Amino acid sequence: MLPKSRYKLIASLQQKKYRTKNGLFVAEGLKVINELKNSAFKLSFICTTIDDEIAVTGEEIFHITERELQKISFLKTPNKVLAVFKIPEQPAIFKKGLTVVLDDVRDPGNLGTIIRLCDWFGVVQLVCSEQTVDCFNPKVVQATMGSIARVQVIYTDLDTYLSKESRPIYAAVMNGASIYADTLPQDAVLIMGNEANGISESVQQFATHPVTIPRFGTLQKTESLNVAMATSILLNEFRRP
Amino acid sequence: MLPKSRYKLIASLQQKKYRTKNGLFVAEGLKVINELKNSAFKLSFICTTIDDEIAVTGEEIFHITERELQKISFLKTPNKVLAVFKIPEQPAIFKKGLTVVLDDVRDPGNLGTIIRLCDWFGVVQLVCSEQTVDCFNPKVVQATMGSIARVQVIYTDLDTYLSKESRPIYAAVMNGASIYADTLPQDAVLIMGNEANGISESVQQFATHPVTIPRFGTLQKTESLNVAMATSILLNEFRRP
Repeated sequence: MLPKSRYKLIASLQQKKYRTKNGLFVAEGLKVINELKNSAFKLSFICTTIDDEIAVTGEEIFHITERELQKISFLKTPNKVLAVFKIPEQPAIFKKGLTVVLDDVRDPGNLGTIIRLCDWFGVVQLVCSEQTVDCFNPKVVQATMGSIARVQVIYTDLDTYLSKESRPIYAAVMNGASIYADTLPQDAVLIMGNEANGISESVQQFATHPVTIPRFGTLQKTESLNVAMATSILLNEFRRP
Repeated sequence: MLPKSRYKLIASLQQKKYRTKNGLFVAEGLKVINELKNSAFKLSFICTTIDDEIAVTGEEIFHITERELQKISFLKTPNKVLAVFKIPEQPAIFKKGLTVVLDDVRDPGNLGTIIRLCDWFGVVQLVCSEQTVDCFNPKVVQATMGSIARVQVIYTDLDTYLSKESRPIYAAVMNGASIYADTLPQDAVLIMGNEANGISESVQQFATHPVTIPRFGTLQKTESLNVAMATSILLNEFRRP
């Protein structure tokens, strides 16, 4: 049985305001929860419909029914377990290796996919403008498929951050140099922009290397690649030997 | 005013059975409809809430209200215009250049994104197994953002087709050769698999070049890239100079 106060708390965590106020977020499903438990994230409590599959030691655990889970889950098809984790302190930005920067990416699915791509390509930090969708939004957490456990997402004012950055700053724009033209450095920043408007002018000023993925269609009508697709291609270009 | 029979017809086209029976599919929004109108696709009729922005000549056009559009639209936020187009005859498969093959991709968003990627990278034909989601599914048509007008999607039995293919056949698998290892040919087939199960065994038998995108994460826990992400990276590898 789950106390009423927990029902209320979980429901409130769908909103960013209450996630920030409580310092908590929700993750669902065995896979994502296990990956978060095996990382630096701290569990607050678990609501589970099963006994065996998650070994929870010294933690607060509520055994609930499928029907209770249905009530608290944010998913269309709830997935056995729901857990509440603590939102960690924001780490400092390392100025080494490859850092991805997002300027106002708004779609939770896109952010989730980009976190997953960072994980795949070994990008440890993702720096986001304050208007980028919250990475602890339940849709983002699910879309990361557990990668949120391994990629640090930092929200900050990009102008302030970029003004202090000394690595080369690549920015994905519509009419930059071909991404294939030069050898890409190990240490760099890669900025990706908003779904509709691209990278804002103030942020573009910091770009030392505006780059573009060339189009190959003969008809040349495709307007642009989705931001997650473009990120996958650019990260591959940075990492390929 | 839209006759009742048209309401019924449009509603029925949400289902593949009725799309096949009537040889018709639905597209929505000015951008997608204009791209289809300027392609080889043949318009059946248009329902529009606006007068100016689409020049429809010699075609059947129904002027409808926003409220009528709300009733017939498949979108959460209907977008001014809905059109019904004829499903074209399936063309023959060209055995030249780069052809992408999908083995049971089920998610409409993934298929739509892959069609958009083919368009970007100048891949003219996409050959799909019969179990792959229908490209005239309204969600796929919307996700292509108009690229469906320029990429031919062909449904066929893959075993039969691949047994007659003479180009090198690349297949995206979990433990193939690194995609960076060799120079990739201009003329090739690239097979991508189902979201959960990858490429079926019977289809894998035809692969002459099983390939993998290497993982770069130090923790090596990310399980796999989503099929649309993997397609974007592989098409980029085939096309980059």
